[in-house]
Amino acid sequence: MKILDTTLRDGSYAVNFSFTSEFTGLMCKKLENAGFEYIEIGHGVGFNASNRGYGKAIQTDEEYMIAAENNLKKAKYGMFCIPGIARLEDIDLASKHNIGFIRIGTDVTRVEESKQFIKKAKDYGITVAANYMKSYAVSPEKFSKLVQISEKFGADIVYIVDSAGGMFPEDIKKYYNSIRKISDIQIGFHGHDNLGLSISNSLAAIDIGIEFVDSSLQGLGRSSGNACTEILLLALKKKGFQIPIDYQKILDLGYDDIQKFVPEKGKSPLDIISGFANFHSSYMPDILAVSEKFKINPIELIIEYTKIDQINMNKKNLEIIAFQLKTNDNMITKYKNYQYIGNEQNGKR
Amino acid sequence: MKILDTTLRDGSYAVNFSFTSEFTGLMCKKLENAGFEYIEIGHGVGFNASNRGYGKAIQTDEEYMIAAENNLKKAKYGMFCIPGIARLEDIDLASKHNIGFIRIGTDVTRVEESKQFIKKAKDYGITVAANYMKSYAVSPEKFSKLVQISEKFGADIVYIVDSAGGMFPEDIKKYYNSIRKISDIQIGFHGHDNLGLSISNSLAAIDIGIEFVDSSLQGLGRSSGNACTEILLLALKKKGFQIPIDYQKILDLGYDDIQKFVPEKGKSPLDIISGFANFHSSYMPDILAVSEKFKINPIELIIEYTKIDQINMNKKNLEIIAFQLKTNDNMITKYKNYQYIGNEQNGKR
Repeated sequence: MKILDTTLRDGSYAVNFSFTSEFTGLMCKKLENAGFEYIEIGHGVGFNASNRGYGKAIQTDEEYMIAAENNLKKAKYGMFCIPGIARLEDIDLASKHNIGFIRIGTDVTRVEESKQFIKKAKDYGITVAANYMKSYAVSPEKFSKLVQISEKFGADIVYIVDSAGGMFPEDIKKYYNSIRKISDIQIGFHGHDNLGLSISNSLAAIDIGIEFVDSSLQGLGRSSGNACTEILLLALKKKGFQIPIDYQKILDLGYDDIQKFVPEKGKSPLDIISGFANFHSSYMPDILAVSEKFKINPIELIIEYTKIDQINMNKKNLEIIAFQLKTNDNMITKYKNYQYIGNEQNGKR
Repeated sequence: MKILDTTLRDGSYAVNFSFTSEFTGLMCKKLENAGFEYIEIGHGVGFNASNRGYGKAIQTDEEYMIAAENNLKKAKYGMFCIPGIARLEDIDLASKHNIGFIRIGTDVTRVEESKQFIKKAKDYGITVAANYMKSYAVSPEKFSKLVQISEKFGADIVYIVDSAGGMFPEDIKKYYNSIRKISDIQIGFHGHDNLGLSISNSLAAIDIGIEFVDSSLQGLGRSSGNACTEILLLALKKKGFQIPIDYQKILDLGYDDIQKFVPEKGKSPLDIISGFANFHSSYMPDILAVSEKFKINPIELIIEYTKIDQINMNKKNLEIIAFQLKTNDNMITKYKNYQYIGNEQNGKR
């Protein structure tokens, strides 16, 4: 079982994509030194996101690649890749800079779009994970059938992705078992902490035999954040797992270098409701804008919208639902202090 | 199953016991209005703690009692009571002010000390919970035998108390099952979030049939905090439980009135290690003082000390262990920004 560190990638949302090359290189070096073998870096939305209007990162993709390449000796670095935002030529560039793994992210309903990307990366000999964003939106049975598609395309790993942080440990086990019934492909789990379950979901995944789990230092990540690396490591150690990562170095790294970037104290009601309702935070700006326009409670809007769609955002439908909710003047500015960075799930690709 | 709100009591550590009567009354009213039936208030350490040097609260015990009494119509309010810090006459006073429940906290190894306190409270007809602090320090089998003692004394409820936040869902089930084999007494669970498991531990407890779980708004509480009420409620709702508490009111209450008191962003390495090592945060000031004196890493000191004792603090033993650890100048001031309020586990009673 491997822990994949995604502090620099998923955590980049929390800092509005402002990690520098220098910081990326330094963190890669320290993470490798502590024992990590898989380190994800770059723009949160992945290849080419800066050029496509999904938030401009402070460095180009290539600058991030060079920073990681120049600072790692043994560990593999990887980047995210959403077909349609990323282009096939981004994989050429990444290969030139000795990328170790690429994670191809598609909505769980759009797995077919990964075909050329997986093929190209595999032609270069790069390790490929197929990350099924919003995995919870299909049943475990349907999920396992999709896995066979990615396997046919050549993926090395498929990821159960709890984008909204609303899955339970028993769900993870169901998806895992459903896949294992029909495939031996390596399986990963990427969790979020909206319902406070990122650690227990990760532990459940590991207990049942999953090959990869993602975590980030201090839990830094989008929305409610990811499973906290420091806690995951020490929980595993307490359970008797032998993980060749130095927990003291990791505690220091999280405390000294990452804690300052944690954006909020306490729990955001919007994050909690997103976990409850399987709502992807990428659409939060739409929710807040429409709530303001109709003077309604965004909490209610999230709950009602996800009853009809947990995958896409249709603004016309959103407004129809908003129009039917009762107005509440107090709610309009209530959540304005929360920043939701990243809206890549929107838009045509 | 009942959720007992402990925001005002366990959360009082996070504000150095500064909740006012006015705030206590207002919160009681709002919690009752949202549907809570059990609301714990007062000094974090319980009756008489202000007079015994465990941190002076901004109000007297009686002022807290009056605030709750005057603002509740149906819900029961309760307070904490550690025999030796609390006196028997504190129960007389509480009864005069119509307290609904008292939680008698003793170390799991000192259950006998609760006898007169339970008896007195029961003579007044007050609901009594016996809270076994540091429950993890004895085996489930031993624990269930202790439960019979509290039952004989007259307790209505016994609590599994994960003081260090280091228990796993499977542990909660073991303790619960061990008790249920020999007793029908009502069982409660009080968790902390040091290993990020407070929600999953609470859900595991509820799944198996526990009668009470504690939570606090925004997770406000000692050390890493408690299970977050808002998240617990919505996780239960998602799992299909019918809990007669208004989640929208609770989300608002946590966000509007409590979030501002959350003391820290991110995760404290000291909290994480406490969960890992079953270390009670009450002794953290000793750890930090001795670490400074010997110029050693408090993380290592916690790990080594808990190998010999997870219940008490023996400063002589602590220094003997400290002397054997390697010095590290960087560590001395590293964790100085963390405040550990409450040291009631120390001292003779």
